[in-house]
Amino acid sequence: MAQAEPLYPVPVEEPNAPEDWLQPFRDVRAVTEQLCSPLETEDYVIQSMDDVSPPKWHLAHVTWFFETFLLKPYLRGYVPLNDAYDHLFNSYYETHGDPFPRPRRGILSRPTVAEIYRYRHYVDEAMGLLLSNPPAEHSRTIAERACLGIHHEQQHQELLVMDIKHILAQNPLRPAYTNRLQTPPPRHPVAMGWYPYEGGVVSVGVEPDGEEFSFDNEQPAHRQYLEPFELATRPVTNQEFVHFIEQGGYRDPALWLSDGWNLARQEGWEAPLYWRQEGTQWWHYTLRGWCPIDPDAPVCHVSFYEADAFARWAGERLPTEAEWEHAATHTPNRHGNFLDSGYLQPVGTRVRHDFDKRRPGQLLGDVWEWTGSAYRPYPGFRALSGSLGEYNGKFMSGQMVLRGGCCATPASHIRPTYRNFFPPSARWAFSGFRLAREARQ
Amino acid sequence: MAQAEPLYPVPVEEPNAPEDWLQPFRDVRAVTEQLCSPLETEDYVIQSMDDVSPPKWHLAHVTWFFETFLLKPYLRGYVPLNDAYDHLFNSYYETHGDPFPRPRRGILSRPTVAEIYRYRHYVDEAMGLLLSNPPAEHSRTIAERACLGIHHEQQHQELLVMDIKHILAQNPLRPAYTNRLQTPPPRHPVAMGWYPYEGGVVSVGVEPDGEEFSFDNEQPAHRQYLEPFELATRPVTNQEFVHFIEQGGYRDPALWLSDGWNLARQEGWEAPLYWRQEGTQWWHYTLRGWCPIDPDAPVCHVSFYEADAFARWAGERLPTEAEWEHAATHTPNRHGNFLDSGYLQPVGTRVRHDFDKRRPGQLLGDVWEWTGSAYRPYPGFRALSGSLGEYNGKFMSGQMVLRGGCCATPASHIRPTYRNFFPPSARWAFSGFRLAREARQ
Amino acid sequence: MAQAEPLYPVPVEEPNAPEDWLQPFRDVRAVTEQLCSPLETEDYVIQSMDDVSPPKWHLAHVTWFFETFLLKPYLRGYVPLNDAYDHLFNSYYETHGDPFPRPRRGILSRPTVAEIYRYRHYVDEAMGLLLSNPPAEHSRTIAERACLGIHHEQQHQELLVMDIKHILAQNPLRPAYTNRLQTPPPRHPVAMGWYPYEGGVVSVGVEPDGEEFSFDNEQPAHRQYLEPFELATRPVTNQEFVHFIEQGGYRDPALWLSDGWNLARQEGWEAPLYWRQEGTQWWHYTLRGWCPIDPDAPVCHVSFYEADAFARWAGERLPTEAEWEHAATHTPNRHGNFLDSGYLQPVGTRVRHDFDKRRPGQLLGDVWEWTGSAYRPYPGFRALSGSLGEYNGKFMSGQMVLRGGCCATPASHIRPTYRNFFPPSARWAFSGFRLAREARQ
Amino acid sequence: MAQAEPLYPVPVEEPNAPEDWLQPFRDVRAVTEQLCSPLETEDYVIQSMDDVSPPKWHLAHVTWFFETFLLKPYLRGYVPLNDAYDHLFNSYYETHGDPFPRPRRGILSRPTVAEIYRYRHYVDEAMGLLLSNPPAEHSRTIAERACLGIHHEQQHQELLVMDIKHILAQNPLRPAYTNRLQTPPPRHPVAMGWYPYEGGVVSVGVEPDGEEFSFDNEQPAHRQYLEPFELATRPVTNQEFVHFIEQGGYRDPALWLSDGWNLARQEGWEAPLYWRQEGTQWWHYTLRGWCPIDPDAPVCHVSFYEADAFARWAGERLPTEAEWEHAATHTPNRHGNFLDSGYLQPVGTRVRHDFDKRRPGQLLGDVWEWTGSAYRPYPGFRALSGSLGEYNGKFMSGQMVLRGGCCATPASHIRPTYRNFFPPSARWAFSGFRLAREARQ
Repeated sequence: MAQAEPLYPVPVEEPNAPEDWLQPFRDVRAVTEQLCSPLETEDYVIQSMDDVSPPKWHLAHVTWFFETFLLKPYLRGYVPLNDAYDHLFNSYYETHGDPFPRPRRGILSRPTVAEIYRYRHYVDEAMGLLLSNPPAEHSRTIAERACLGIHHEQQHQELLVMDIKHILAQNPLRPAYTNRLQTPPPRHPVAMGWYPYEGGVVSVGVEPDGEEFSFDNEQPAHRQYLEPFELATRPVTNQEFVHFIEQGGYRDPALWLSDGWNLARQEGWEAPLYWRQEGTQWWHYTLRGWCPIDPDAPVCHVSFYEADAFARWAGERLPTEAEWEHAATHTPNRHGNFLDSGYLQPVGTRVRHDFDKRRPGQLLGDVWEWTGSAYRPYPGFRALSGSLGEYNGKFMSGQMVLRGGCCATPASHIRPTYRNFFPPSARWAFSGFRLAREARQ
Repeated sequence: MAQAEPLYPVPVEEPNAPEDWLQPFRDVRAVTEQLCSPLETEDYVIQSMDDVSPPKWHLAHVTWFFETFLLKPYLRGYVPLNDAYDHLFNSYYETHGDPFPRPRRGILSRPTVAEIYRYRHYVDEAMGLLLSNPPAEHSRTIAERACLGIHHEQQHQELLVMDIKHILAQNPLRPAYTNRLQTPPPRHPVAMGWYPYEGGVVSVGVEPDGEEFSFDNEQPAHRQYLEPFELATRPVTNQEFVHFIEQGGYRDPALWLSDGWNLARQEGWEAPLYWRQEGTQWWHYTLRGWCPIDPDAPVCHVSFYEADAFARWAGERLPTEAEWEHAATHTPNRHGNFLDSGYLQPVGTRVRHDFDKRRPGQLLGDVWEWTGSAYRPYPGFRALSGSLGEYNGKFMSGQMVLRGGCCATPASHIRPTYRNFFPPSARWAFSGFRLAREARQ
Repeated sequence: MAQAEPLYPVPVEEPNAPEDWLQPFRDVRAVTEQLCSPLETEDYVIQSMDDVSPPKWHLAHVTWFFETFLLKPYLRGYVPLNDAYDHLFNSYYETHGDPFPRPRRGILSRPTVAEIYRYRHYVDEAMGLLLSNPPAEHSRTIAERACLGIHHEQQHQELLVMDIKHILAQNPLRPAYTNRLQTPPPRHPVAMGWYPYEGGVVSVGVEPDGEEFSFDNEQPAHRQYLEPFELATRPVTNQEFVHFIEQGGYRDPALWLSDGWNLARQEGWEAPLYWRQEGTQWWHYTLRGWCPIDPDAPVCHVSFYEADAFARWAGERLPTEAEWEHAATHTPNRHGNFLDSGYLQPVGTRVRHDFDKRRPGQLLGDVWEWTGSAYRPYPGFRALSGSLGEYNGKFMSGQMVLRGGCCATPASHIRPTYRNFFPPSARWAFSGFRLAREARQ
Repeated sequence: MAQAEPLYPVPVEEPNAPEDWLQPFRDVRAVTEQLCSPLETEDYVIQSMDDVSPPKWHLAHVTWFFETFLLKPYLRGYVPLNDAYDHLFNSYYETHGDPFPRPRRGILSRPTVAEIYRYRHYVDEAMGLLLSNPPAEHSRTIAERACLGIHHEQQHQELLVMDIKHILAQNPLRPAYTNRLQTPPPRHPVAMGWYPYEGGVVSVGVEPDGEEFSFDNEQPAHRQYLEPFELATRPVTNQEFVHFIEQGGYRDPALWLSDGWNLARQEGWEAPLYWRQEGTQWWHYTLRGWCPIDPDAPVCHVSFYEADAFARWAGERLPTEAEWEHAATHTPNRHGNFLDSGYLQPVGTRVRHDFDKRRPGQLLGDVWEWTGSAYRPYPGFRALSGSLGEYNGKFMSGQMVLRGGCCATPASHIRPTYRNFFPPSARWAFSGFRLAREARQ
């Protein structure tokens, strides 16, 4: 499943005609199945914690999304393959019907994996019909929802990678997902630098009717005032985080938010998720199995609490999402590694000869970066109408914003304005962080 | 998997030579796999509640038992297929090593089902070698442990049926286990009668070194005094239990033990497990799917609390295990239906022409019968030595005794002295009950 | 509150006339208040765990019992002081009305302690009227219920002592209940011996209409067969239990029932409740504050699980309740110390010159002795009718029988047939144990 | 305890000399005790939920604060009254020592209420010595900490009122706190209007070394950009909230944040805390007992989730904290009712003849107003050094900001920049809300 070329191109500019979405639709659907190809049937069934869904549930749910929001309303004569799926694969759309309880997704042996693939192909065929011959009066809505469904499936591609990693990591046998992942080229350590931004009134977010796709939670574009600040040129690395551990970072309550300290003690946290120490060497579980940590790769699988504690220990802080977006929008060398690279693990900064080394790099890709901002609506935010309005807006409490995508995000899915969010306790995403600070006068 | 003939004969008298156990061993192993043959791969993985184990875990655990207690100590040169299995498939033998946590059996996708079958066949082959050429100095121990391992696997055959039923029943799709179960012949309702016993000093239990196999918890034979009592001629039926429901049995606290009342309200019990009402008709989930209840079949999937409440409502009581055993030992027509019948569901009493209709029947088979006795050791009880001592003795608190086997018990596994036990809250076993009362003067 | 004379005599033989219960009623009521006299107002309010009730709740509940079962039905013109008390102080009588939830008794600041004493005295006065001038047609019922209410209040006297100890022990200040407890006279260690019993058919329990009071759960008298056995001449002592601890008794799963092992690990048990080690010395919290343990006193505040594990470690077992009762009924020197002694702590055996030292002593008093018997009804058991039937019968699952009373039991309350019961996990009662074994041939 | 005059004046401008704090210290201490004067001893002991502290704990903790941060470091020869209090009354200062577990504050009967008053007066006397004769070299620190301790005790005055209300409301007897509360004058309904703000770059927060006291979390002053917005002229009223209830607001998931919806269903919310319906009339529990709701008073005891759902239902939103602060800073008629009014209940807007009715009123007092802002640090935020740094900073996750104080806040304690915070689920504070919206073009 590894390759050097982009997995698939999704149009960056938003086409208006349903027909234009046919090929992207097929591409996305194929990649999802490609991601699952190394799995054993048994792996598809497991729910290793409430937040994780069985891979076969992901396969079915993204299919349900197309069926529910496109086929049922717009494909004349469409007959669902199985009426029960509407209940089973509704994730959280309360206004659509009573969703099957999330923590019980892992007790469903049926439909089988084969039946779910059958469901996928049944819906694929119907989607082919709909996109090829859309009813004219709904053409625009169909194009918009096809686009949304494709981005939705991309999100679940990343969730699949995260969840598969969590599932396999719980198993004392610690099986590798596959032995055929790409090996990253050798890296050279890069010292962390600081880059100053003047601040002032900046624009954040995107307009609802822009040419490029964006989620409702990135909208609308609006102004924010930023005090002058500085941003680190790269994320915090494993080596730096080991230093934090060795200096007692997990044992000093003065460094931690109260909720984080309580949770860390309760759960016995002493290092990032998936880490263990043998002698003086730290190892971690990766999708290719147990490996020694790469000192120069960004630290990953830390919660917001750990990122925040590290920043306090370092005498710095996390950037706000506005600071981060402002920097990312104005940086040329922002790309790191995505799902397309086929590493499925964050890797150290690669400095290309054409980069301005003084400026922040690796903003997109490798690790999602925790920001210091709680996930709340932008001024003027309007959720999508109908059940689709439950897509983003209803999660705007209790979560922190992460930015930039990671090694499991499709490259065509991410952009500087993209707002991801997780509870501050979450660690199973590919989440790291970067430091910021007030400008030095 | 249904047949009219016994599934397999296990020698009723205990042979002393390992060689004699080779064929029974093969028979038992084959039946276990036969029971799983209708399953989809996905079904093998599910743990629908903490008390349920994934079918593939059962397949591996019974294999681990032979490996741990026979192959490793006695087969020269035996090399385990996978060292990790010792931890993964140890059920609860704390003195043997740290068992993998029971509630997490359902997060193990690996080893796969295919690998577990490979493990089984690997162990089967080694067992063939050991039983065919046992080292002379351990011959007696090997024969004893082979016998124990076979009975242990029979227990897990019943657990497999119980657990598969629970797993499939959780699924909103309510799939049938198989459509190829035997259909029971038509039954004729039989009125419940009472049969009197004089009581006095009776013998209960069996001697440790008897000719027939028995578990340590059935030993030793000892005397008990029984006051005169009467025992119902058959178990309570579905129809009788519906009457209890309709008379408000689930809503009157005066009928219930305190723990039972609290649990029933907390869990919202209004009928036996797997039952639901449609209009005035009660249906229940069976291994052949949803069916209307058979009014004349014994009520099944009730907890001790429900059995006890019914008895109080009826003005009677449950028999003690000593009363039950005394009656069962002295009754000619005690057999009902077992796993071998292939119904996998309790059925109504069949009255054969040669039966004495006045005497209690159907004591063995169809449903395990809750007794009024807590599960405690007999006077003089000695647990097996070493880790095997954890087999029965350590569960002698918090549980009630059930007697007689059920429609999922192999016929060759049960006997009147057999003591099964479950917590009073358990409902997923094939558990029913029979009434008793003090003798009328 | 300490004294050498019995706290109060309750008639051993059951009088038939309500008038005869007037003085015993007043005596019992006075002792309850005497027990509370060392408390601060704040102590009356605390519920230190779900099983503990605030002392002021006990004071009110026993009063409610007299009001509910005597004054309201039988005292013409009786007007309750406060209608809300019927809900607040109903302990668990579901058939009487919806009881206030037990775990929330500790959030009730009102009625205040003063109001509850007012309630007591209001009811005392009315009870004086009723017992002095009982309506003739209910005379017998009134006498029976007065007797029951008095025994009920005696039970709560012991619960008060247990609960006060638990409440004060949670407080890091570890306040003494009072400094005015009686100091026990010096004791001389007595070696433990064994006394043989022949067994055979024995009588257990008492007839419902006997001359002496007994609870319904002690009835009816019936026969049991006992195999020959031996009983230890005294309970296990602190010194013996320290030996068990030092030999790793809390760390060897082979000694423990499965439920007990899991609980002990979960709760971090390493010694009896209220114990702590300083250097090599064990201390424990008592109602006079922290004290070094007395090596010769019976071990106390152990669960059934710990008692059972000790017995297994010692190669012996606990007696059944029938064995215990048979021994206690036929032993002349059975008395130890009760509430009346004013020690409120078990003390070592005192050997009087007129004792037969070979026979079991100290069966009554000092510590409740865990038996190996689950708490179940006797053959022919009939609960009291009406709401009073909830008194004992509905707790007959999930509990083990203890026998003999303790240092917090009024001497006039206990008898050899008395059946107390607690869940096997309970430790806050004054619970110890004595060993038994099969007879040696 | 009711009066028309301010309860006590705390200097608005921050004095530099410890002596100047002596009288304010005495005033604050006296008010705290005055607030407790209607309580029964028993009321002081209760912890009705984990978030509530027993009143006697509040009395002791605020005293501990002065002892820990002033007397121990700065009063030569100070000897604590009881060394154990340092552990018992440390709220959450992990760097100071191991705090006594919060959920167990309600199991402490000792120290008694009388002992805690003794502790207060002991510390009061020592504080008198310290403030009258401060060591010169620490004079400034002592003045700063005295000021902080006084504001800290004011916060606990409000918490006392909230907690007492919660404690008494749990009791089925629903006792009034006191019958001597001030009765508010009759109110006239005022229609809600909207007032527009231009937005732009505004200043938020206060400078650390300003003349007036402020908490670290209000600092530093910094710029923010506000899009044009409109703010409601008064909080949402009970009558308006009843309309939301009647229109199905609690039953439509489309109105709710996901966390809020799940919580509301789990807890069975159908109205604000303390409300119940009788016929068509809504009643609520107040500190003077059960009363019909006042239709024109601000709705109170709603969670952030309910406020947010109401706003969505109304087609509006909650203001951000920056919007709110900007409006409050520039509004002349901002005062409502505080602790000093003696109502202890929010009351409807009183329109004074000198008010500009078009502008937002009642911003300070009556109800804390939920904002749409998560509680996070301002740019450039620096926590206090040492253990005092745990005062505010470590709670900056998982909480929402509320502004403006309430009917239980001392008038001298509140200011437009003041940031209060609670989890979005909290309802026992006097919390209401006001609507905002984007400016209409």
